[in-house]
Amino acid sequence: MSENRTEIASLGEFGLIEHLTKNFETQQASTVVSVGDDAAVIDHFGKQTVVTTDLLIEGIHFDLMYTPLKHLGYKSVVVNVSDIYAMNATPTQITMSIGISNRFSLEALDEFYEGVYLACEKYGVDLIGGDTSASQKGFIISVTAIGEVSPGQFVQRSTANVGDLVCVSGDLGGAFLGLTLLEREKKIYLESPQVQPDLENESYIVGRLLKPEARKDIIQFFEQQQIRPTAMMDVSDGISSEILHICRQSKTGCRLFEEKLPIAEPSRAAAFKFGLDPTVCALNGGEDYELIFTLKQEDHEKITLNEEISVIGYITDLEEGHKLQTKGGNVFNITAQGWNAFHK
Amino acid sequence: MSENRTEIASLGEFGLIEHLTKNFETQQASTVVSVGDDAAVIDHFGKQTVVTTDLLIEGIHFDLMYTPLKHLGYKSVVVNVSDIYAMNATPTQITMSIGISNRFSLEALDEFYEGVYLACEKYGVDLIGGDTSASQKGFIISVTAIGEVSPGQFVQRSTANVGDLVCVSGDLGGAFLGLTLLEREKKIYLESPQVQPDLENESYIVGRLLKPEARKDIIQFFEQQQIRPTAMMDVSDGISSEILHICRQSKTGCRLFEEKLPIAEPSRAAAFKFGLDPTVCALNGGEDYELIFTLKQEDHEKITLNEEISVIGYITDLEEGHKLQTKGGNVFNITAQGWNAFHK
Repeated sequence: MSENRTEIASLGEFGLIEHLTKNFETQQASTVVSVGDDAAVIDHFGKQTVVTTDLLIEGIHFDLMYTPLKHLGYKSVVVNVSDIYAMNATPTQITMSIGISNRFSLEALDEFYEGVYLACEKYGVDLIGGDTSASQKGFIISVTAIGEVSPGQFVQRSTANVGDLVCVSGDLGGAFLGLTLLEREKKIYLESPQVQPDLENESYIVGRLLKPEARKDIIQFFEQQQIRPTAMMDVSDGISSEILHICRQSKTGCRLFEEKLPIAEPSRAAAFKFGLDPTVCALNGGEDYELIFTLKQEDHEKITLNEEISVIGYITDLEEGHKLQTKGGNVFNITAQGWNAFHK
Repeated sequence: MSENRTEIASLGEFGLIEHLTKNFETQQASTVVSVGDDAAVIDHFGKQTVVTTDLLIEGIHFDLMYTPLKHLGYKSVVVNVSDIYAMNATPTQITMSIGISNRFSLEALDEFYEGVYLACEKYGVDLIGGDTSASQKGFIISVTAIGEVSPGQFVQRSTANVGDLVCVSGDLGGAFLGLTLLEREKKIYLESPQVQPDLENESYIVGRLLKPEARKDIIQFFEQQQIRPTAMMDVSDGISSEILHICRQSKTGCRLFEEKLPIAEPSRAAAFKFGLDPTVCALNGGEDYELIFTLKQEDHEKITLNEEISVIGYITDLEEGHKLQTKGGNVFNITAQGWNAFHK
């Protein structure tokens, strides 16, 4: 945090928007009109437009006690562009609306927007509009991401076929273990503020939670290799929940294999430290922002060279149910225990 | 309100989305993929895409003590499609995200969505996505509206020219007077709950606040008459504030005439009743959702037949300042006293 504190009311709404957007230059040729009018104008030149939106609320989706504002700004963009990649599309623009209580200074907002702009730069998207408002309580963030795709090349959740391979990018469970660690440290801090947090060797899982990345590289790899997944979505609630969405919408069953679930070594170590089963963390932990997708078997060879992609199972007939085969050979039903904001 | 109360937690997030969207059919040919995937897909078939977004927060932008939820749902859509019309474009899709505390039941949400769907039907837009979340406090609404326009036919704020006519649709100040009335009645009610509200003869101004309409008819009229305004925006903060935006972005001055400001008879009567100057209400009252636009003088004849359009002044050189000429012949500087959420 900066030492200065500028009250946001001293700028007014239009002064604030001007302040927050003045140094940002658009990168996309498709951005015809950006911030500063009733609406923005986009020309996707014959491509199809892809749209997704997310609402993030302090105390529900994030805890500012252990979330730096810059990371929060970055993550707000990433979780939305991740949904665009999950359609096999390329993100091109975002709008960003925020509601802030008077406990936030202009310097705090600047930190948040530093993260926003960093993510915009990294993913090549333009910030083309938004809304700034007071809130009665806490920090509210609403992001809409827009992308483009060649006509008909988008990939939905409902189009997996029996026999397809089930694949996932990167590794699973890390963000959930990062959250578990930070919640634990928060509890210790609230009880004994003099105890210093023990985050040594935990930078991997903490990073997975606080600064996730969207899998632009996987979508680029698909394009280079001329692979089109049969179905795809991003992993925000946990792969148990996501594979059940794909199967329900595609009217299929599935069989996943515990031994194939990609779990990073630091995640495995953290799980053991907290007395948790790494497999359960990988299946039910949310916010990894990896991609889960299904592929025709004939595309298998194309993906073997990409170490960032794991085959974790296959799609079956609906009648065969939704099964996980354990390392010991037992078979369980997959149930969604994913994150549900309404039960928190 | 219905007599039944269903807890939202009993459905879960996906059950809730399914419940809220199950009866809605898309109307736009451009809606390729709608609700139920990571993102929606739109194909505007060679047209340009127009995007705007608004964040509405209980206690800041609306008061549920006198705002029926159905009206709130309707208005949330209208204020966004109004921004699309203000670009001289046609709204085609919206996304709707909501955050709700557990004080809201499923029946309450259903009322809100009744209004949303009514507005979608009236303006011919498809609801293609969104997000539902718990909130720590109050009701939070974030809407993004998407529209289309023939390439290059959009109208910005920055393109008014010296000599252009300044025009406004409909009449001004009504929504502000409706707000004044309802705030007064709320105060009376809180002090003496047995007193019945005195809303007789006030349905016009209350309607202007609670159920505004966007000026689709004006944009259609422009198309029929082959008129393209030189600059345009919608009236959300009051025309003082809006004309200053147009002049600042166009680097011009303006002269408006008090006697030309369109004020409906019920608004004028209400202003006198409250001891307010109707002209001040028309200049500085927000939320009328009319269109303010500038026209080439040669288009004057084309608009004379449309009773919904008033010429209220003209654009001048920047050096001549931003002036209002009163009925008595005095000339004042126009200053923006529009609504500012950060000073509330």
